[in-house]
Order: sequence, then structure tokens, then C-alpha cells
Amino acid sequence: MPVHTHEDSPVMNVKQVHAGSGPGSASRPQPAAQKLSGIFAPIPTPFVNEEIAYDKLDANLQRWARTRLAGIVVLGSNGEAPFLDEDEKVSLVSFCRRHFPADKAVIAGTGCESTRATIRLTKRCADAGVEAVLVISPHYFKASMNSEALERFYQEVADASPVPVLVYNMPGNTGLNLPSSLVTRLARHPNITGIKDSSGNIVQIAEIIANAPPDFSVFAGSASFLLPSLILGARGGTLAAANVIPGICTDIYELALAGRTEEASVLQKKILRLNAAVTSRFGVAGLKAALDMIGYYGGPPRRPVLPLGDTERAEIRSILGELGLI
Amino acid sequence: MPVHTHEDSPVMNVKQVHAGSGPGSASRPQPAAQKLSGIFAPIPTPFVNEEIAYDKLDANLQRWARTRLAGIVVLGSNGEAPFLDEDEKVSLVSFCRRHFPADKAVIAGTGCESTRATIRLTKRCADAGVEAVLVISPHYFKASMNSEALERFYQEVADASPVPVLVYNMPGNTGLNLPSSLVTRLARHPNITGIKDSSGNIVQIAEIIANAPPDFSVFAGSASFLLPSLILGARGGTLAAANVIPGICTDIYELALAGRTEEASVLQKKILRLNAAVTSRFGVAGLKAALDMIGYYGGPPRRPVLPLGDTERAEIRSILGELGLI
Amino acid sequence: MPVHTHEDSPVMNVKQVHAGSGPGSASRPQPAAQKLSGIFAPIPTPFVNEEIAYDKLDANLQRWARTRLAGIVVLGSNGEAPFLDEDEKVSLVSFCRRHFPADKAVIAGTGCESTRATIRLTKRCADAGVEAVLVISPHYFKASMNSEALERFYQEVADASPVPVLVYNMPGNTGLNLPSSLVTRLARHPNITGIKDSSGNIVQIAEIIANAPPDFSVFAGSASFLLPSLILGARGGTLAAANVIPGICTDIYELALAGRTEEASVLQKKILRLNAAVTSRFGVAGLKAALDMIGYYGGPPRRPVLPLGDTERAEIRSILGELGLI
Amino acid sequence: MPVHTHEDSPVMNVKQVHAGSGPGSASRPQPAAQKLSGIFAPIPTPFVNEEIAYDKLDANLQRWARTRLAGIVVLGSNGEAPFLDEDEKVSLVSFCRRHFPADKAVIAGTGCESTRATIRLTKRCADAGVEAVLVISPHYFKASMNSEALERFYQEVADASPVPVLVYNMPGNTGLNLPSSLVTRLARHPNITGIKDSSGNIVQIAEIIANAPPDFSVFAGSASFLLPSLILGARGGTLAAANVIPGICTDIYELALAGRTEEASVLQKKILRLNAAVTSRFGVAGLKAALDMIGYYGGPPRRPVLPLGDTERAEIRSILGELGLI
Repeated sequence: MPVHTHEDSPVMNVKQVHAGSGPGSASRPQPAAQKLSGIFAPIPTPFVNEEIAYDKLDANLQRWARTRLAGIVVLGSNGEAPFLDEDEKVSLVSFCRRHFPADKAVIAGTGCESTRATIRLTKRCADAGVEAVLVISPHYFKASMNSEALERFYQEVADASPVPVLVYNMPGNTGLNLPSSLVTRLARHPNITGIKDSSGNIVQIAEIIANAPPDFSVFAGSASFLLPSLILGARGGTLAAANVIPGICTDIYELALAGRTEEASVLQKKILRLNAAVTSRFGVAGLKAALDMIGYYGGPPRRPVLPLGDTERAEIRSILGELGLI
Repeated sequence: MPVHTHEDSPVMNVKQVHAGSGPGSASRPQPAAQKLSGIFAPIPTPFVNEEIAYDKLDANLQRWARTRLAGIVVLGSNGEAPFLDEDEKVSLVSFCRRHFPADKAVIAGTGCESTRATIRLTKRCADAGVEAVLVISPHYFKASMNSEALERFYQEVADASPVPVLVYNMPGNTGLNLPSSLVTRLARHPNITGIKDSSGNIVQIAEIIANAPPDFSVFAGSASFLLPSLILGARGGTLAAANVIPGICTDIYELALAGRTEEASVLQKKILRLNAAVTSRFGVAGLKAALDMIGYYGGPPRRPVLPLGDTERAEIRSILGELGLI
Repeated sequence: MPVHTHEDSPVMNVKQVHAGSGPGSASRPQPAAQKLSGIFAPIPTPFVNEEIAYDKLDANLQRWARTRLAGIVVLGSNGEAPFLDEDEKVSLVSFCRRHFPADKAVIAGTGCESTRATIRLTKRCADAGVEAVLVISPHYFKASMNSEALERFYQEVADASPVPVLVYNMPGNTGLNLPSSLVTRLARHPNITGIKDSSGNIVQIAEIIANAPPDFSVFAGSASFLLPSLILGARGGTLAAANVIPGICTDIYELALAGRTEEASVLQKKILRLNAAVTSRFGVAGLKAALDMIGYYGGPPRRPVLPLGDTERAEIRSILGELGLI
Repeated sequence: MPVHTHEDSPVMNVKQVHAGSGPGSASRPQPAAQKLSGIFAPIPTPFVNEEIAYDKLDANLQRWARTRLAGIVVLGSNGEAPFLDEDEKVSLVSFCRRHFPADKAVIAGTGCESTRATIRLTKRCADAGVEAVLVISPHYFKASMNSEALERFYQEVADASPVPVLVYNMPGNTGLNLPSSLVTRLARHPNITGIKDSSGNIVQIAEIIANAPPDFSVFAGSASFLLPSLILGARGGTLAAANVIPGICTDIYELALAGRTEEASVLQKKILRLNAAVTSRFGVAGLKAALDMIGYYGGPPRRPVLPLGDTERAEIRSILGELGLI
């Protein structure tokens, strides 16, 4: 298998295939704002004694900077955004933008329950220099969040946002799915340029790609369905697993782009267990535990999320071992 | 039927049955902190141009003060708590405590996603003089909110809270149910004194009452299952509908307490349509529309929740008409 | 507490309160067809080596006959109806009607997926002499079972049925809920005389009672919400637990009818654990195990349902012990 | 685009790529039993006046015989299996095997709720000559259908079956999902040779393929996720849409096999609307309506499923028109 496991080594032939035209070409810096394709890591927020540990964050950022990741998402679900106050959020986003390479994108999660809070945070993060914002659907008042309310919400936010807006569909956490019919309507707004769909519903992803304008960018929301999304036309992925295995994730992306589907399929199936461990099974605590084991700083989540117990850690260690990561 | 529709007139015989010992005896003021039984209204937050309208709130409070309500809940779901910033929340709670009669309880909704934010807001609201706090379960990271995490969360909050803590189970909005086994464990904490259960699961409510210590107070979370809860031993209700029909709600409560189950049952069935209109069907927008129609100030919700359209308003008007309220 | 635990002894004072007018008065036989109120046991089908054991059934029937049960349901969920062929079903129903007292009702579960099979089985069971049929909603083609399809289904069956039809709402097994709006429309059909609602949704039960014609009979579908249903106007219950504790179930019914709500409430809470053990937790295998322990014949379910293991049996034994039944 | 729309014309280049080794090579008949790969149509059962119309069926079979379908499934969900009696089922299966080409497979759906009924029907269908049976999970007693019960069920059926057993996972109708961990255990049984997974959960499909033995055949259960399944290693699909558009479905299959992913992806997205119309949106009534429009006999479903109304028919007509089928 011609795929390298070094985080910073691209798949050889792939680079030749899409040289100059695609994502991930670290050798030829482009404005990050034009690079909203490829693999993004929704980075966790490191805490020491429940406070943001900027030194740990900096070290992590430097390491992710050396990968082929197209960028990072700050304040996604894995960033424990619901546990941070607004000022913490802005400070964190600003730090990340300043400490991450200019040729890689920094996207900020800015969705709040109210329209006004979402717009306020969006503007502050745009001021901090992010290339785009990722806006989760309001969801507490589920019964009131019908298509009309959600459509107006995203339109108001997109109208007010100085930077492109990516819709964030995360039914596993919100209990609310954004149907493809709504998303394709939203896709017509000039400042709504894409979606991170974490539903895992591959038919819905196909429908969005089939019906939205061609320049609307769909990102797989989990590494477990990255390849199926890519072959249907997704532009990349925003993947918790990309924090831990940026190399394999970008390999899948580049192989898919190069039409080397079979090789990509082998990798896709290889990462399923790890992906489950850092997402559906153990959540952000699992992601942080895995990072701790491979030399990044993970640390504990903020409470009430509990750190993993010994049994779960042993299982993650075993999975990382199988992948040759420790 | 011997039940009065005037908001301030108690059911006659009931007063004699439980004179001096029960809730709702407006003539004999008690410390509000000892009155955590009876009917509470989770009041909506009035907005004008998206800002809190304190003058409207004051007028509403004065009117609710003349009812037999045992108290109010500020910053419940109907208070649009997720749409308010922390400083707005504290200001609102403080205003309500100062402008509502001292012999009626004011309970503040203080649950946030993180333990630290919940404790901080709890302390600030306790400083503002509330008799208790109502703490919704963290829920964004659903998969991580297992019984152990939730138990530790409530214990930490209860340990830190200067005032009694009421658990708030609201699966319709959170997508997470607190099972009776967890609640009965929480009920052993000396500072966790009750629960508002909005699940509508009457078996779960029965299990909590059967298994929790006898001084643990269960409150029905919606008027639609108030009487069934009361006959199983609930201490009262925290009911959106109590904002609109405090008289009927307290009638049901007092009739149930007096053993006049059949009369209470007639009232219970009479209010189902109104209750659905201000909760499951039209949500806080429906509640505010109903209040507007009967002389309170309702006004629009904060966005993204949309105000009702004409069709929905006409239906609410019709339901209020059937109850003789307009 | 004046409630007897002997299965055949009615609650003393209750009998005086509703003497002659109510259900369960074993001393004054009435035509069973007019007795569709009170407590019914949905009896399990006894198997030996996977074949129906009629001798065991006969012995069970003789014992249930000596209780205050208003009747039995044959071929309900607990009768493992989906595991029986049509001829087995007719034979079983016929046997039960012939071997159970004429003054107690025998109701047959006759709902099948197709309209034609349901009507055919309904007619054969009517020929066998049952007082009514209980018709579960077709549910395999969930997406096609909209209100219109279900309404027509029940109308066709009711039109063709020689005996009264009871609707059976069992979302836990069917994955399909019959909303109160549909049920109240069905209730207008002269041959649709009631519903067994096993949803546990007490608000829905209240809505049906509030909106259906007064002679439409609502039966609680589980003992865990029997009393709440009765105080709202239910006519009785069809309760798995009534196989095991017919005495306590009829006590609750008679106390509720006599207005002795508080005593009924104590009993209601007392049976929650047993009820869960023979329904939601361990299903028909749990019910059969409990029957084995108190001298009835339970035996194994048909496969693929497995009999309980030792741990589950020990737990059921402990629960029965707490109730003084072994 | 090099893809033919004629049902009987294979994709040119594809045939050269996998000539002789793969499915769909109509020119070189193989024993049907060895051909459990490729595209299968789960055919609907034609009714006239609620009775099986064998003449209509025969005409349909002759037309499907001229396509590149690898075979048909009789008595799948689209065959309205739950509406047929056992004797009808055997007669139908027998007719299909006798009237369909010997070099194409006929698979019979034989899953019933009880183990004994499933085994009995399986044997009778094997006697009728089917190449394999498709066994849906028992599901009425959902709470009892844990992994242990389901594992024993499938083992008993597979032990008793004279022909290979395919597991059928259909959570949309059964309300029960077979997790990948269970399926991979079942896959070790020598007579359990594959699964039709209609869950649409592409991650689960990937997990099964990754963890089951290499000769275990996974079939996509709906055309909407056919290509994603194939690129992960699925052996084919059993697709309602294959009744209507066998040509496009086999094109996708052959293009995927030939590594022409991009062309396959275009076709995959092109059929989403039609697929939804004959599955999730309008069900078997939609499928039958579509067949009526393109010259097959569809006819009405058995009741209680209602035929489509005019609005739905017009929509299907429009979708078929867009695909150039009418």
C-alpha cells in the first residue's frame, strides 16, 4: 500500500494528480479563505484545572500545523463550546488564528441558541481573523425550530456575518436534523457556502450534493463516512479523528480525489474502530485520552463530562496500537 | 360545580380541609422558603425589541401576585433562559424577587451546560434572594451524560448552592431523560429537595414518589398531567398554563388535596386543549400570545423563535373563549 | 389498610358503595357482554415442548375464575399471538371461552397485518363465543399506516365484526402510536366500543376520555398507570400484572370507584416493581416465570423468546416475596 | 456518458473489465446458487381484487428476466409478505422459481415472528427450489429480542435451512436494528452467507464488511446508498428501485466494479428522487404505481395499505418523466 503513515507526507502519486489545483498542497500557500476544502480537525480545548491551557494549545497547534490538514475548527463540539463563556471563546479563537499557519484555515464555531448571541459572537470571531464560521442549529426549543424558523435564523446570521457561514448539522447532540430540502434552500444564500453534516445519513448527504448549487461545499462530519461522502462529491471532512490521525484522514481524501477508490476503501475500513472510540463511544473524553497517548496534550474535559476510566483507556490504547500509533 | 373562576378566590371547602397546614393560604404569610408546594408559574420573559421589558414584567408580576400561585419560576424553559446572557439572567431574577410578594417563592432556573457556570449562576441568584434554584440537566454531550456524570454534576451543584436545588427533567427539550433510579439517588442529598418532571411519564413520576424520601417534593412539569401526579403524591406543579389560568390550576391542586378527585378530574380534562396550545403545540410563542389576549403582556419571543401566525392565534383565541377567559 | 390480599375477597366497604352497579360483583352474574369494565388479565399461552398445553391452561383458567377479574384477554401480546398460527388461535380462543365462567368476559386478540386476515380471524373468534375482539393496529408498513389508512382499517373490521371491537394501541411493540385525534374519530363507530391503551401516555388517555363519546371505554394497558387512568375516567384495565396479582389490581379498581383515592394510591405505588418485572423489564418470559413461582403454570415462551436466566428469576422471586406472594 | 438506458444492455467497457468473473454476465449462464452477487429486485406481489394475480406476475417476470438483474427476492417487504398466508407464500415462491430463468436466482423471504414458523416456511421454500432465503429479524417482542435471542434464532434457522440464509435488517419497518457486532458473529455460521441491510447506516455497513469473513456478502437494502456500499465492499444490492430501473441499478453496480466511480456517482445522485418515491415516501403503493406507469402490472396493495392518490401519482409520473422512462 503506497500510503505513508507520517503525518506530513502526502500520498506520492496523488500530489501529481491534483498538483496545484487541490487542497492540502502545503508547498504552495494559498489564501486560507479560498481553501475551504480538504480535511479539518475540530480541535479540543485543552484545560488544566478547568482553565484554558494556552501553552498546551500552542504545542498542539504547532504539531497539527505540520500535517496536511487544510485547517482547524475551533469551538466545535469537540472544542466543548457549550462549556465556554463568550469571552473565553473569542480569546481562544483569536489565539488559534494567531498561532496557526496563515495558509491554513481557522474556522470558529459560533452558533448559540439566540440569533443575537450568534451574530455577536460571529462578528467578534470574524474580527479575530477566522476564514469562516460554523453555525450549529439552535435546538433547545425543538418544537419551534421548524424549517421556517431555521431558515430565517441562518439567513439573518449569514446577512450579518463578515465571513462565510457553514451550516452545522449535528443531530446526535442537538436532537434535531436539518433535512436536505432546508439545506438546499439555505445553499442559495451567497454567504452560506457549505455544511458540516454529522448526521451520518449518507442519503441525505447525497441529496444535498445533488440539489445544492455546485459551489456549495459539503463536509463529512465524521471520519467513519468520509470516503462515501467524498465519492458522492463532498469537498472534505471535519473529523474528530483528524486530530489523532491527520495523516490517514488526508490520505483517504487525496486517494479519493485521485480516483484510487479501492485503496481509500481499505483505509476507510481500517479507521472505523478508532473513529468510534473518539466520537460515538467515548466522546470528547475519548478524543482527549487518545491525544494524551500519542504525545499531544489532551487532558480532562470540563465537568460535568468525566475523564475516561482505566478500562476505556486500555481499550483506546489497544486501538492506537493496532494502527501502529503507539 | 363549586369552583370559582376568579383567580384570587380559593375553593371554599378546601380551605377548611387543610387550613393552616397546606399551600395556598394567602391569608397567613409564611416564609416563602418553606412553601415549596403548590402551583408555580414558570413566567415568560417579556421583550420589546429583543430587550427585557421590565415595566411589562412588573405589571405581569403584580397581577400574578394576586392569584393563589405559591410562587414563580424565573428562567425556566418558558423564560427563554437559553436566550439570555448571564448578566441579564441575574438582573431579571433580582428584579422578580424584589417585585414579587415576599410570602410567595421565587425560584430561578440556573442550569447551564458546564458545572462551573451552573454553580456561578446559582450563587448569584441565591444572592439575589431566591428561595430555590431549578437546575436542568446538562444535555449537549448526551452520550457522555450517563448516570455517573449526572449524579456528580447535581452533587457538586447542590454542595455549592446556598439554597435548595430542584432537579429539572425536561426530555422534550434536552433529548435526555433522568430515570427514576437516578432521581431517587439524588433525592438523598440534603440540599436536593425536589424535582420538576416534565417528561409526562406518569409511571416514572410514581416511581420517584414511591422510592424517594418522603420529604422529597415532586412537581408536575405540565398542567396536562397535574391531577394524576397529585393523586400519586406530587406536592404541586410548575406549569406553563398556570401563567394563563392560575385559578383553575390552583383549583385542581386544592380539590385534589381535599380528596375531591372527581371535581378535580373534570377540571383536569377541561384544560387539556389550552395546555397543549401553550406548551407542546405552540411553545413559548403560544404562551405569550395567550397572555396578550387576556391582558397580560406576552409580546414576541426572542429570535430564532418566531411569533405565531394569524391561524394559530385564532385557534388560541377560540380555546380561551371556550374557557370563558375572553 | 382495609384491603384484602386474598384474590377472591373484594374490598369490603367498596362493595357497599357501588353495590349492584359496578363490575366485579361475582355474586350477581350478568351477561358477560355487558361487562366490559373492570380488570382483565391478558393471559399467557402455556406451552410444553412448544405446543399449547391445554391441561395447564385449564388449571390456570380455573384459578383465575375464582378471582374478581371481569374477564380475560386471549391472544394479547402476553398470549404470544404473533407466534401462533390461525388455527391454533381459534382453537385456543374456543377452549378459553368454553372453560371460563359464562359471567366473565373472554376477549380475543384478532389484529393481523392485513385487513382480510383480521376480519377472518375476528369472525372465527366471534363464532367461538367471545364477547369482544381486541384489534392491534397493523404496523409493519409504518410509513403507510397514516391516520387515513388506520381509520379505514378499523372501520372495515368493525363493520364486519359480529362482536364489539376494542382498539389496541401498543406502541412499545408496534413502533406506532394511535393519536387521540384518531381514536376519538374511531370512537364514533357504533361497533368500536373501547380502547386498550398501552402507551403509558397519561395525557393521551385523558384526551381520549375527554373527547370520545361517554360510552366509549378506555382501558389502561398496564397496571403501572391504572389508578391515574381510572381517576380520569377509564373503565378498567387490561393488565399483564392482573395475571399474577388479580386481587391487588381489582382492589385498586374498586377503591378508585369508591372514591378512596388515597388508599388506591398506596397500592398503586406498591405494585410498580412487580409490574415492571412482568412487562417492560422481562416481558412475557418474566410474566411466565412469576406465574410458575406462585402456583400457576407459566412455562417457557415459544422461541425466539428465551426463558429467564437465574439472576432474573431471583429478582422476580424477591419482588414476589416483598409483596407477600411467596 | 457511456451508460445505456436499455434494460438489457450492459455498460460496454465494464463487461470487458470483469468479463467472466463477475455478476451480470448474461451471456454465460452459471448456476444461480453461485450468483449471490449483483442487483436483485424485491418484486411486489400483484393483486387483483385482493387475490394474487399469477398472470400479471408471469408477465412481469418475463420482463425482469430480460434485464441484467442477478435475480429476484420474493416475499420481501415489497412483496407484502406480512399480508400473505403461509400457503399463499409457498405457492407464490414456487411459481416464481418455475417461471424465472434458471440462471437467475430466486430468493424467498421466509422470516416469521416464531422460530418454528420461520423454519417451516424456509423448508417449504427450499423445496420449491429457491437459491437462498432472506430472513427478517423477529421484532414484535422488541424488548426480548436482545443479541442473545437473535443470535440463537438465526443459528437455529440456519442449522435447519437446506439453503443459504441471508440476514435481513430492516429497522424502518421492524423498529429493531441488528448491530454490526451481532451480524459479524452470525457471519461465522457456515450457512449464513450474507445480509441485506436496509438501515441506510453506511458506517454499520462498513463495519460489517470490515469485520465479517471475506466471503460474507453484504447487500445494500436500498438504491439510495448502493454506490457507497459497493465502494466499501458490498457484493450488490436488493433494491425496490431495481424493479423500475433495473438498467440504471445494474449500471451503477458494473461501473463501481470497473472502478469507474465518478460515472457511478453521477447515476447514484440521479436516482435519489425516484428511489425515495418508491420506498420511504410512498412505500409499496408508490412502487406499484410506478410499475403501472412503465408497462409492468403494479396494481393496488392489499389493504390496509391504500393505493396512491392523484397528487402522489402525478409526482411519480413527473419523476419518471425526468428520468426519461415515460
